[in-house]
Amino acid sequence: MPNTLSSKARALLEKAALVHLATVMKDGSPQVSPVWVDTDGTNILVNTAEGRIKTRNVRRDARVALSLTDPDNQYATLLIRGRVVEVRAQGAKEHIDKLSQKYVKRAYTHRPGELRLILVIKPERVGGSGA
Amino acid sequence: MPNTLSSKARALLEKAALVHLATVMKDGSPQVSPVWVDTDGTNILVNTAEGRIKTRNVRRDARVALSLTDPDNQYATLLIRGRVVEVRAQGAKEHIDKLSQKYVKRAYTHRPGELRLILVIKPERVGGSGA
Repeated sequence: MPNTLSSKARALLEKAALVHLATVMKDGSPQVSPVWVDTDGTNILVNTAEGRIKTRNVRRDARVALSLTDPDNQYATLLIRGRVVEVRAQGAKEHIDKLSQKYVKRAYTHRPGELRLILVIKPERVGGSGA
Repeated sequence: MPNTLSSKARALLEKAALVHLATVMKDGSPQVSPVWVDTDGTNILVNTAEGRIKTRNVRRDARVALSLTDPDNQYATLLIRGRVVEVRAQGAKEHIDKLSQKYVKRAYTHRPGELRLILVIKPERVGGSGA
């Protein structure tokens, strides 16, 4: 299974399709929630905030998985397993503003005191019919 | 966090919304993929097949998580953590036929030799704005 994003996979990640990000809890059980994403061409960039369950989980265990379907064709799926290689605060505020425009076409409502973070996810296995 | 499905959560599960089911691989890393579901009112019923990664995973570790969003409102999310309490072959063929009608409004194309299975998932924590 390829460990890089094909141009087809990148095109799907550029669509306003919610991605479901799975992480592992402290007790080893799985956790999954919808996130906004984009890509730098190599990695998947997820925007989250300090204090969230997924943030705590990936700091303890960097292994994650992502699942999405093409909003225009539910049979076109992208299934990615990979690793959070960086948790980045720099540029994260601007990144959530950009994702808000991508997904809901309006400015993001920032909450006072909220520290946004970018999870940089390096793909290790890229599968699914949209890969 | 409640451990049962509210009427609002059940109504969301009755919609033709894909659900992203997370399981844990043998090495402890997460895996997630889209599935068709419905509910018996108490449990979430996922239809899968013998031999699939998710089937092997839940037989080894029954802990799972599910994430879905309302197709009519991406902010209405349902985030469930729970446990596969039964892997049931009985009625699974009829169940995938029913789910195919629910999700794509046509008959399911059965593959020769494929053994369908129902994963009966008991919710243990039901969260999200659609809960």
